[in-house]
Amino acid sequence: MQLNIREFSSKDASFKSELKELLSWESVSDVAVQKSVEEIVNRVRVDGDVALMELTNKFDRRSVNTASELVIEADELAQAAKRIDPALLSSLQKAANRVKIYHERQKQTSWQYEEADGTILGQQITPLDRVGVYVPGGKAAYPSSVLMNVMPAKVAGVGEIVMVVPTPDGFVNDIVLAAAHVAGVDRVITVGGAQAVAALAYGTETVPKVDKIVGPGNIYVASAKRLVFGAVGIDMIAGPSEILVVSDGLSNPDWIAMDLFSQAEHDEDAQSILISTDLGFIQKVKASMERLIDDMSRKDIIKTSLEGRGALIHVASREEAVEVANIVAAEHLELAVENPEEWLPEIRHAGAIFMGRFTPEALGDYCAGPNHVLPTSGTARFSSPLGVYDFQKRSSIIHCSHEGASELAKIASPLARGESLEAHALSAEFRIIDK
Amino acid sequence: MQLNIREFSSKDASFKSELKELLSWESVSDVAVQKSVEEIVNRVRVDGDVALMELTNKFDRRSVNTASELVIEADELAQAAKRIDPALLSSLQKAANRVKIYHERQKQTSWQYEEADGTILGQQITPLDRVGVYVPGGKAAYPSSVLMNVMPAKVAGVGEIVMVVPTPDGFVNDIVLAAAHVAGVDRVITVGGAQAVAALAYGTETVPKVDKIVGPGNIYVASAKRLVFGAVGIDMIAGPSEILVVSDGLSNPDWIAMDLFSQAEHDEDAQSILISTDLGFIQKVKASMERLIDDMSRKDIIKTSLEGRGALIHVASREEAVEVANIVAAEHLELAVENPEEWLPEIRHAGAIFMGRFTPEALGDYCAGPNHVLPTSGTARFSSPLGVYDFQKRSSIIHCSHEGASELAKIASPLARGESLEAHALSAEFRIIDK
Repeated sequence: MQLNIREFSSKDASFKSELKELLSWESVSDVAVQKSVEEIVNRVRVDGDVALMELTNKFDRRSVNTASELVIEADELAQAAKRIDPALLSSLQKAANRVKIYHERQKQTSWQYEEADGTILGQQITPLDRVGVYVPGGKAAYPSSVLMNVMPAKVAGVGEIVMVVPTPDGFVNDIVLAAAHVAGVDRVITVGGAQAVAALAYGTETVPKVDKIVGPGNIYVASAKRLVFGAVGIDMIAGPSEILVVSDGLSNPDWIAMDLFSQAEHDEDAQSILISTDLGFIQKVKASMERLIDDMSRKDIIKTSLEGRGALIHVASREEAVEVANIVAAEHLELAVENPEEWLPEIRHAGAIFMGRFTPEALGDYCAGPNHVLPTSGTARFSSPLGVYDFQKRSSIIHCSHEGASELAKIASPLARGESLEAHALSAEFRIIDK
Repeated sequence: MQLNIREFSSKDASFKSELKELLSWESVSDVAVQKSVEEIVNRVRVDGDVALMELTNKFDRRSVNTASELVIEADELAQAAKRIDPALLSSLQKAANRVKIYHERQKQTSWQYEEADGTILGQQITPLDRVGVYVPGGKAAYPSSVLMNVMPAKVAGVGEIVMVVPTPDGFVNDIVLAAAHVAGVDRVITVGGAQAVAALAYGTETVPKVDKIVGPGNIYVASAKRLVFGAVGIDMIAGPSEILVVSDGLSNPDWIAMDLFSQAEHDEDAQSILISTDLGFIQKVKASMERLIDDMSRKDIIKTSLEGRGALIHVASREEAVEVANIVAAEHLELAVENPEEWLPEIRHAGAIFMGRFTPEALGDYCAGPNHVLPTSGTARFSSPLGVYDFQKRSSIIHCSHEGASELAKIASPLARGESLEAHALSAEFRIIDK
């Protein structure tokens, strides 16, 4: 199948503007969605379980009469794990274990130090009490997403993890429940959409109020998360997934083609970009794609995504490749090059860096260990993969000795008076020795 | 002056509901403000400097003709530092140095580990390229806020720090500029409000686009930050400042009274709460407050704040005091008790913990070392003081050996097929050895 993928070169006069246009992505801000989400969130906030049941019955075509029907307890999750293919369960367990081992390296611990006068300063680091994990339901059910969102919270030591997943028409996905069991979710509530986010943010009689909500969702879920942000914590609001593959032209072109497909198959808005210094290799990858696509079960999605948002970019040098990679600030950056570790110090922005010829993104998506929840749409410029640090919080520790307080008060007092905050000044001055 | 401060006790039947009502704070979401902010942000985004100058001339009553008039370069900041009282400059320098030393402990470094088969996993940790710091101008100018927002970014290694501060009627505060000099700000732009946030988020001909915007502001600034969140990173949107003082009744009541005042003097919405097991002591503190308030220059604000949002709470035991502290999840928690370190393991939520009788909040506000930008309104349940970690970001590192990739592919493949993502499965399977 022929593929009309945008091709351009750093030699083009319009290169920078073309690149900018390629990367532009404006998350849809739909006024009607916004209004609908506000209504839903307010209803659940005011009417609790009653509103949650009504909205769930309406949107998910269910007939729930009592809120307890929405709850799947831990022992039922264990039952689901027994029902799925044992090989799949084993893969889930292996993946969860690798994710756990990697994330344990991220766990931070409290620290403090003592100054000469006995004053102690530090930070106490504690886990969140309770976290809500949103998992999309229906056709696009991703058990790997359950593992990736829940495991960092478990490693952080979060007290209770509540998962919400919509079950349209009452269809429950056993693989998703099995993943929840493997990850150690405490309870699943079969609700979704803005109503699920509202229930987690404000609590209902059945759904406990959480401290933070994480996990992907559609525009209603994303809008609801943005709305409740502040009442609870939220993770980043994700845009479409993207990959930037940088190749030196020495990989198997079929491999690179399939790596690009693996991103494109997510959805029509997903973005796959290849950069190479080798124009001939770019053409080989294109030929591989045109040959391989015919056999792909999701070939329509792949074609739409590649033709709409994909690109093949020829650059003149390694330096230019690095420059483009830093402009893109990709969610997934694959360095399919010789000695990728030599590139690393120059890569300033990327969600995850897949190094060498044997590290396709797919391994990171499932089981390498690092998280697959990554900053999209260039937000790697200022944000990080989901991690244990997202489920820990810090409290500053300040414990002044009398001598320490006396000396600090002499610094604080003029600053407070400079800001016309007299009570601040006096509160400090009261601690000065021999004043 | 008599003070009508709310008093209640954990013995009251209505205690929990009374506490809940005391703590309730709904950030104002004003539709008119929202609409106005959207217009301002869009104008600056589309028209750049022209819109920025027009809006600044209008809102700050200025008459700027060329955008370069808005810029204060680093050498002019150094001049401002020479103009202020040398004692004040010295205090700023000492405070900045202590803040720097403390924050250096927060700096995180890249890490990686190698598995038996040669696969390398880790995280590369890098500073943000460019940060914008919003500093309120006019009457309430806080040089300490400049230090607290800029120093963590400097310690993180941020490449460029741009500060914005409105100068209504052209009034420039030398102490604020001196603080910017001491902290190491690269450039100051004299703009404020939603137009300043928009300029930092999207860039204009004169204002460079930043990666993250931090710093406090009024409702227009907060609304604009919420609006641009996603295009750039932002810090938390802060509510009014609050303190919870826990006393065992053995401190000097005047000290505790002044500590409560130091919070109340910020503004009418600030919240000061005292908890004690000693009812007699609570009455002594009240008497101190009624005696001390008459001499306070900001007594009207203090009175309004204490009578509107303050409280004196009697609890039966240390356990109850801890329970209340964890419910409040205070921005500032002062443990004015004997052996406060014994309380620490039980304190789950607080922005900063001021321990013992010699650690008033005022010392932390200016110079103890920890940051004074702290989570307000109970958000300490899920967020942390501003820190170096807010100006660093992480990229996952995955570098599979061929053998490692082969083994991981065997785990990933069934999971990918379980999610109907065939290209993911094939991309992984291509790396299996001897397949």
